Amino acid sequence: MHVLVIGAAGMVGRKLVARLAADGMVAGHGIQRLSLVDVVQPDLPDGFAGEAWAADISAFGAADRMVAGRPDLIFHLAAIVSGEAEADFEKGYRINLDGTRLLFEAIRQQGLHGARYVPRVVFTSSIAVFGAPFPDAIGDEFFTTPLTSYGTQKAIGELLLADYSRRGFMDGIGIRLPTICIRPGLPNKAASGFFSGILREPLAGKEAVLPVPDTVMHWHASPRAAVGFLLHAAALDTKPLGARRNLTMPGLAATVAEQIEALRRVAGDKAVALIRRVPDEGIMRIVEGWPRRFDAKRAEALGFRAEKDFDEIIRVHVEDELMGKVP
Amino acid sequence: MHVLVIGAAGMVGRKLVARLAADGMVAGHGIQRLSLVDVVQPDLPDGFAGEAWAADISAFGAADRMVAGRPDLIFHLAAIVSGEAEADFEKGYRINLDGTRLLFEAIRQQGLHGARYVPRVVFTSSIAVFGAPFPDAIGDEFFTTPLTSYGTQKAIGELLLADYSRRGFMDGIGIRLPTICIRPGLPNKAASGFFSGILREPLAGKEAVLPVPDTVMHWHASPRAAVGFLLHAAALDTKPLGARRNLTMPGLAATVAEQIEALRRVAGDKAVALIRRVPDEGIMRIVEGWPRRFDAKRAEALGFRAEKDFDEIIRVHVEDELMGKVP
Repeated sequence: MHVLVIGAAGMVGRKLVARLAADGMVAGHGIQRLSLVDVVQPDLPDGFAGEAWAADISAFGAADRMVAGRPDLIFHLAAIVSGEAEADFEKGYRINLDGTRLLFEAIRQQGLHGARYVPRVVFTSSIAVFGAPFPDAIGDEFFTTPLTSYGTQKAIGELLLADYSRRGFMDGIGIRLPTICIRPGLPNKAASGFFSGILREPLAGKEAVLPVPDTVMHWHASPRAAVGFLLHAAALDTKPLGARRNLTMPGLAATVAEQIEALRRVAGDKAVALIRRVPDEGIMRIVEGWPRRFDAKRAEALGFRAEKDFDEIIRVHVEDELMGKVP
Repeated sequence: MHVLVIGAAGMVGRKLVARLAADGMVAGHGIQRLSLVDVVQPDLPDGFAGEAWAADISAFGAADRMVAGRPDLIFHLAAIVSGEAEADFEKGYRINLDGTRLLFEAIRQQGLHGARYVPRVVFTSSIAVFGAPFPDAIGDEFFTTPLTSYGTQKAIGELLLADYSRRGFMDGIGIRLPTICIRPGLPNKAASGFFSGILREPLAGKEAVLPVPDTVMHWHASPRAAVGFLLHAAALDTKPLGARRNLTMPGLAATVAEQIEALRRVAGDKAVALIRRVPDEGIMRIVEGWPRRFDAKRAEALGFRAEKDFDEIIRVHVEDELMGKVP
């Protein structure tokens, strides 16, 4: 099995590659070759044949080079994130729309010229394809009315993936990731950053700022669950999907209060005491337009699994990022 | 008011231009100038300042030329139709996706370079953005899972229209037309052709073939209603639409049996006797995947109006195409 990971240097990409390297196999097959691409050069894990290189997916010929080696399985995680796609309209469309279309088209061209080529393509979409107003729990047949350019680009990627798959040019599956919590690394300025920050920082003995009321509910899954979704999507029989190849992933709907109580159970009152409440009207307004809860029946029936409570999400972080140690 | 019609030589385009010429005004404003474009050169109505020219919307600079005169109102009707977009994958994407995006981008560039420019853009989408399986009546929040490349391209056009409008680059509204019935002109090979054929041909004293059972239900509106939708969309206050700028138009859900009984009431038994039943398994299979009925609440609340029964649809055809005469 030759596996291509596009976006291999990102947070989820690195965890996916580490897991592929640790398992040595994916979708029931041994990994013979890894091709890793990102806008900065990713690291190729020791002991694997393959190649890692830096490329702009929208550059002339870049996508063709990625699929020239006819990878059997392609993870397409590369994207300009929400905030940047909103700030830089042209860059967002160039990478998220043109880049995705160029990749799919490069795959089609591979199949047109030479032997049959229909790789499995796992595309990371986002719950940003949905826009408020929402029903209480968003079902699998709710329409995609994004309120950001990023969400628009992801929704278009989903449509292209479904059509290229229906036409038999590739075997695609799109998975809409929940907000990833707890994001490792340094605090960032993303409006959603606090959902991770109020847990990650206290778990490291540092202060964190909470800009919204405790009653705010949102939709979460751990980085480990995200990697699990990707691997499950790589192995899934896509026939039962029919033409509906884009799936909302399961997740955990939790209020900020529930996050904090889970932190208290795992790390005690002294961790919780590190959360400072500094209400921020701007962030509150943004967060009000976000989904709170999904009813991800289809993905659950297909065997995708997320965490069941926030204690588990915190334990995943402690195990995977803090070597099992709670301060 | 300067009005640009792209796709002005098509069936709906010609009827729209004729209506604009007859009214001399649109959206409450006098028409000072008409720009008409299609892949074949459209006719400019007598007595109107303006220009008519042939252009491929996907060709380099073609969309820029269309908006160079800063039209206040743009009707974008140009498209490769469903059957052709399915047969010629690249042409469909080039015209229906790239063409639409190039148009929206040309509008944005006009606004970036020089005075503020935010034209009203009325885009004809299609019920082909939906794919089976369907609920009994398809509501306004049902998801877009097209089963054709044409439907995919229209769904992408809708997303682009919404995002370009949300960003303030244009003031767009997308309208999903029902199947147009009775289509004037010669019989064609479209799988949907018989819905019009079984009425149009007998009304002209000719035989028509019915390839499906009488129980088949579908969603219809007359060409006159389609022009009415376009004019209403041109005049509508778009603020109440919020970010959800694509609307399923009202229509009439009718079975083939109801179509035939309406024909009998308008043109008698001798017209009905001209319908020959020749079951066609291929067409039956295609038609089974089509929507039967919509619940177009939003568009109705916004004042869009279609015919209420098939007698009316037939009368529209008799008035507009047969100079009021039933054989």
